[in-house]
Amino acid sequence: MEFSALETELDSRGADAFVHVGDRFDDDLGYLTRFSGPDRDYAFVYDGEAVLCAPRLFEEQAEQEFSGTVVSAAEQEATAAGERAAELVSGTVLVPQGIPHDAAVWLERAGCELESTDVVSRMRVRKTEAEIDRLRTVQEAAQVGMARAETVLAAAGAEGDSLTWDGGALTTERLRREANAAMAREGVDPAGNTVIGAGETCADLHFTGDLPIERGETVLLDLSPRGPEGYYGDLSRTFVVDSEGGWERRAYIAAERAQDAAFEALSEGAGTVASTVHEETAAEVGAYGFRPDGSPGFIHSTGHGVGMSLHEAPSLRADDELEAGTVLTIEPGVYDPDEGGVRIEDLVVVREEGFENLTDYPRSLVPRKR
Amino acid sequence: MEFSALETELDSRGADAFVHVGDRFDDDLGYLTRFSGPDRDYAFVYDGEAVLCAPRLFEEQAEQEFSGTVVSAAEQEATAAGERAAELVSGTVLVPQGIPHDAAVWLERAGCELESTDVVSRMRVRKTEAEIDRLRTVQEAAQVGMARAETVLAAAGAEGDSLTWDGGALTTERLRREANAAMAREGVDPAGNTVIGAGETCADLHFTGDLPIERGETVLLDLSPRGPEGYYGDLSRTFVVDSEGGWERRAYIAAERAQDAAFEALSEGAGTVASTVHEETAAEVGAYGFRPDGSPGFIHSTGHGVGMSLHEAPSLRADDELEAGTVLTIEPGVYDPDEGGVRIEDLVVVREEGFENLTDYPRSLVPRKR
Repeated sequence: MEFSALETELDSRGADAFVHVGDRFDDDLGYLTRFSGPDRDYAFVYDGEAVLCAPRLFEEQAEQEFSGTVVSAAEQEATAAGERAAELVSGTVLVPQGIPHDAAVWLERAGCELESTDVVSRMRVRKTEAEIDRLRTVQEAAQVGMARAETVLAAAGAEGDSLTWDGGALTTERLRREANAAMAREGVDPAGNTVIGAGETCADLHFTGDLPIERGETVLLDLSPRGPEGYYGDLSRTFVVDSEGGWERRAYIAAERAQDAAFEALSEGAGTVASTVHEETAAEVGAYGFRPDGSPGFIHSTGHGVGMSLHEAPSLRADDELEAGTVLTIEPGVYDPDEGGVRIEDLVVVREEGFENLTDYPRSLVPRKR
Repeated sequence: MEFSALETELDSRGADAFVHVGDRFDDDLGYLTRFSGPDRDYAFVYDGEAVLCAPRLFEEQAEQEFSGTVVSAAEQEATAAGERAAELVSGTVLVPQGIPHDAAVWLERAGCELESTDVVSRMRVRKTEAEIDRLRTVQEAAQVGMARAETVLAAAGAEGDSLTWDGGALTTERLRREANAAMAREGVDPAGNTVIGAGETCADLHFTGDLPIERGETVLLDLSPRGPEGYYGDLSRTFVVDSEGGWERRAYIAAERAQDAAFEALSEGAGTVASTVHEETAAEVGAYGFRPDGSPGFIHSTGHGVGMSLHEAPSLRADDELEAGTVLTIEPGVYDPDEGGVRIEDLVVVREEGFENLTDYPRSLVPRKR
């Protein structure tokens, strides 16, 4: 791990140390330490040297995973993670604004003056090639999950309007389990956020319920598995079995063209203004007769950063210039609570010249055996 | 959701409100709100009425999942979750000690006096029957994952000392993927913490690497999937293919008898002192000639609470009396870095009279087709 950004931040702020405290679910800590840690608090300290206050029973694992110095619980008087960090620092200490309050209080009681910093989320924006390789690998596993779900849809039969598969009604939950099992077999974790909507529930961006799937309605699959090193993939496709055209056909073409417009905007590479990508995309949705900024139409942003968090900086609504190495979703969608929802989502990395699509999965409204 | 414990806490502390802020990874918030939320902060407020400051784009989902009042972002001036909570409260406000520091600062700036409370972790100890049903269902899915892994081990062949299966070397990673895919198909999330050790790495409690599995060595599987409502299962078994007896046989018998000793101690039901369960268990490990409190021998506690967190209160090292409705792991283990490791883990619920084992999975050192 490379801590020069922390060094630069300490210098420019005239601060003595950086401290963060949290558990395995804190992605900033995971990024800084590469420590897969426990579900209780531990501390990271940087004051020119990187130190991890390892939790009890996790000393050996911390030594293996963390590149800096590991301090075991037995070496310290204090027990709480924030108190342990406070034993190691003094003066002006930079902390992320969401550091646990008790840790902040321990540091203040020890005489430190706290100032907040967003340096870690800034560090995380620009991925190294090693990080991009991890993201690509997880995205490939997401594609295997999508292929499984698409294959099931392609093989589905029908009883009246309801789809059937493998001897029973085909439901969003059955489809989710098929996709999740396929991803688990690839060595990634479905991560509890496989969203599959059918028909009207496609317009609900976070639907995770169980519904029978019908002929002619949109089936929207959004797969966001997490790999063993903590990086996410993010892939969405929309299918219709026995489509009769109409709304979903128009919405699909709008989403495809909108994604192409985003790619066109991104083809200028590093330096492209983030919000330009969103504006070009939304305008294309509008050109197809859907609302570019509300329901029914395009109701969310074109994309977000992906890394150790599923949603991280930058936002494609921001006016910042995109940096090379930024990994983003490009996910235009068209939603109508009366009709259904269509979204097409790829994961891309911004390069100095142009961009690279980390996704290699066909766009097709009609499901095919993959 | 029943908030009488919050009401009682406010009364006894003479406080005006309870506030917590966090994202979907905060299990206290998940418990209080049943809101499966986003990976960015939202706020929960209780001042006689339960209020959720719903994040943008999640209003509809919050209305569906949360039993109290939902305040949408559009209804409030403030944008940060802590600032939004601060708009709704005044006076003395109780907060969990790990509330994000920025939220605490927003509340203090608004004139509130903060005091910390552990009321939520106390509320979570005693599960309702509905919670116990969810835990049982996830544990059943863990059993399906274990059965898959055990069946693979039972079917394994050998080339020299190395196990083979389905045309290749059988490794810890291949076994993990089989177990994880089976659990995903049951509708639970492997949750990124399926620990499978082989031989010496069984003594590493958190090993998640990839190693070939050999004849005669211990294979320790610890499955902790998470169900769609956020509750965990926790199940460990240890197998040896082609065991020649010796160390692992003695260690296995010690672990079995130690688990029986824990069950015996728990048969008194509610009121049993937690640490008594651990002491009886450790003493039994010691009776078989292994260290009851260190390496080589029994290196961890007999168990921990399980619920919306994989590890939660109570600890079986504590001197508190166990309450009816407490869900616990019972997981004695024997580890020797030169030999391997054995652990047997069930999930149980403490009842007024005795206890109920939520686990129905055989104990056997020899893997069998399940």
